[in-house]
Amino acid sequence: MSFNLKLLNVENNARAGEFDTPHGTILTPTFAPVGTQATVKTLAPAQLESTGANLILANTYHLFLRPGADLIAEMGGLHNFMQWDKPILTDSGGFQVFSLAEMRKIDQDGVTFRSHIDGSKQRLTPEIAVQIQEKLGADIIMAFDECASPYDESYSTKAMERTHAWAIRCLQAKTRDDQALFGIVQGGIFPELRKQSAEFISSIDFPGYAIGGLSVGESKIEMYRTIEIVNKILPSEKPRYLMGVGTPEDLIYGVQRGIDIFDCVLATRLARHAAALTNKGRLNLMNAKYSRDPKPIEEGCNCYTCKTFSRAYIRHLIMAKETLFGTLLSIHNIHMLQDLMKKIRQAILNNKFGEFSKEYLSNYEYKPGITADQIIYESRE
Amino acid sequence: MSFNLKLLNVENNARAGEFDTPHGTILTPTFAPVGTQATVKTLAPAQLESTGANLILANTYHLFLRPGADLIAEMGGLHNFMQWDKPILTDSGGFQVFSLAEMRKIDQDGVTFRSHIDGSKQRLTPEIAVQIQEKLGADIIMAFDECASPYDESYSTKAMERTHAWAIRCLQAKTRDDQALFGIVQGGIFPELRKQSAEFISSIDFPGYAIGGLSVGESKIEMYRTIEIVNKILPSEKPRYLMGVGTPEDLIYGVQRGIDIFDCVLATRLARHAAALTNKGRLNLMNAKYSRDPKPIEEGCNCYTCKTFSRAYIRHLIMAKETLFGTLLSIHNIHMLQDLMKKIRQAILNNKFGEFSKEYLSNYEYKPGITADQIIYESRE
Repeated sequence: MSFNLKLLNVENNARAGEFDTPHGTILTPTFAPVGTQATVKTLAPAQLESTGANLILANTYHLFLRPGADLIAEMGGLHNFMQWDKPILTDSGGFQVFSLAEMRKIDQDGVTFRSHIDGSKQRLTPEIAVQIQEKLGADIIMAFDECASPYDESYSTKAMERTHAWAIRCLQAKTRDDQALFGIVQGGIFPELRKQSAEFISSIDFPGYAIGGLSVGESKIEMYRTIEIVNKILPSEKPRYLMGVGTPEDLIYGVQRGIDIFDCVLATRLARHAAALTNKGRLNLMNAKYSRDPKPIEEGCNCYTCKTFSRAYIRHLIMAKETLFGTLLSIHNIHMLQDLMKKIRQAILNNKFGEFSKEYLSNYEYKPGITADQIIYESRE
Repeated sequence: MSFNLKLLNVENNARAGEFDTPHGTILTPTFAPVGTQATVKTLAPAQLESTGANLILANTYHLFLRPGADLIAEMGGLHNFMQWDKPILTDSGGFQVFSLAEMRKIDQDGVTFRSHIDGSKQRLTPEIAVQIQEKLGADIIMAFDECASPYDESYSTKAMERTHAWAIRCLQAKTRDDQALFGIVQGGIFPELRKQSAEFISSIDFPGYAIGGLSVGESKIEMYRTIEIVNKILPSEKPRYLMGVGTPEDLIYGVQRGIDIFDCVLATRLARHAAALTNKGRLNLMNAKYSRDPKPIEEGCNCYTCKTFSRAYIRHLIMAKETLFGTLLSIHNIHMLQDLMKKIRQAILNNKFGEFSKEYLSNYEYKPGITADQIIYESRE
């Protein structure tokens, strides 16, 4: 099939559209929760669906190592294996190899590394990354890229060059026409490298483009500037995916700068650390002040958790170390982001995103002392 | 309200009936999953409901220590706190005080002990146990009893005598008429003590009676014999509750001997240890032979887990340490026992329980080397 972004409205740089995949239409802008090991942690698919989630992400690196791509292919592919019949995106494994794997050796052809699970020697190349992703069978698959330390210009240059060469090889290796292969822009925090990368990658006819290598330790200002530089160059008629970003404020700032797709582990990671995302900032539900609080996490929220349980009950589950708290908070946190994306999309369709975002951010309290990107960096899986 | 067991049919000693409570009718015989800390571990109420569960058990000892009975009362009672609007049974705390608490000192008036959570000094008496259970607000509450080591005749005698004196005090302490207080028979494995205890406890007009102190290390033969001795004495028109027992075979052997209500942590505990209950025996889903098995845990099972996922996927979740496996296996295991109880009840109503149980047990494979009661003993919470 051919993958096209149908833009329904554009307000300044913010875009509302539709992107068809074999497992349904993605309404953009969209936020994808992360199901690293073929499960969005602690949630059954029915619970995940109740959050409004549509596109989800799974990690090639993890699934390649365990249970293996052949096994998943034998079980009918990732959709059938994990029983998610809506769109799935797999990353290429690049990010995890460079951040998780031990003893990695990079050459022009690919990367040799040791598994974090059993220490076994493994190899990923552009061709192998595509082959694995074809076996997994996601709707959107990613080119194999190299994510460098963002402040190291010499390494960022080399990594970008390899990423470019590998992008071409990924496209050549691809055999399935029911998967959209996205190219990835790299280049650290260096404007000239980012320009060069955006120009090179957008010269290749991918059905979508991603910005990689952000939310890995750089400042917010550097992140937003990079998005602006890259999105000026990427073709406006193709979807743009900002990898690994997903705080409420970054979703708004990203959409303002022309991003259509986001993914992040933050919502589920915070949930497992007893924190709730709300439209006014974060709540640490371990706090004793919630012990007798009969209110839901966020008043007016329509998620299962808020419609059913008090803060007092959720705090009790946290204190009693009952894993159900992670499930209930994951439902709420993902729902909160899905709901925000729906409001953002509706605002763009009504040409009111400018007003909406101003109003939203004026009510939103940043967590003092910790910047969102630091938290994301720690929580990248 | 008055609590009455309506017996619909009796086949030999097996009984099918109805027992009305303020939160609905319990169809007997029934199996109650255990929600120790106001949650059946890993399950949201909607998932628990999908298993067919009706009556559930919560533990007074745990809830008394955390979050406290006053807090739960303030949150509208246990039903509202945990959002389970079907019948709930609370135990008296006796079993846990004698098996979990540290430095316990027993006197004629009650027990002083240290909390396993923070080491704080605590006290339970018959009056306090009833008061706590009135604050929790379950439909069925239990008299405060003392569970002795089953083979110690001298201790069993003393514990039984205290249990008898405490049963009277519990009845006197009770102030709510919307809760059914059940008396408990003790006496270890000693037939004379069990007779004496059954006679004494059944001379007090409780709306139901329980057999305590079983499944704590005694043999199966001793357990079944004790049930027979006690049930010959307990009045046939009142419900009989066998505490802490819940393997498939024991549900059948218990019903054969006149039991109406069971509870056990086995189903959920096994789930967290990667084991599935089936009508043919247990499966250890960690076993490599399931890694590429596309079949559900049990063919023909109508639970969410079996209707949705393969053994291969569940095994992957186990190996990847994704807590979702505990949720999916808990759903299956509880559903399996609920389904068995439905079949047992229907068989009794059709006067076919004799045939049914013979047929069922001939297809059921005991786990070799470990007797079910040993496993239950280890897993009592």
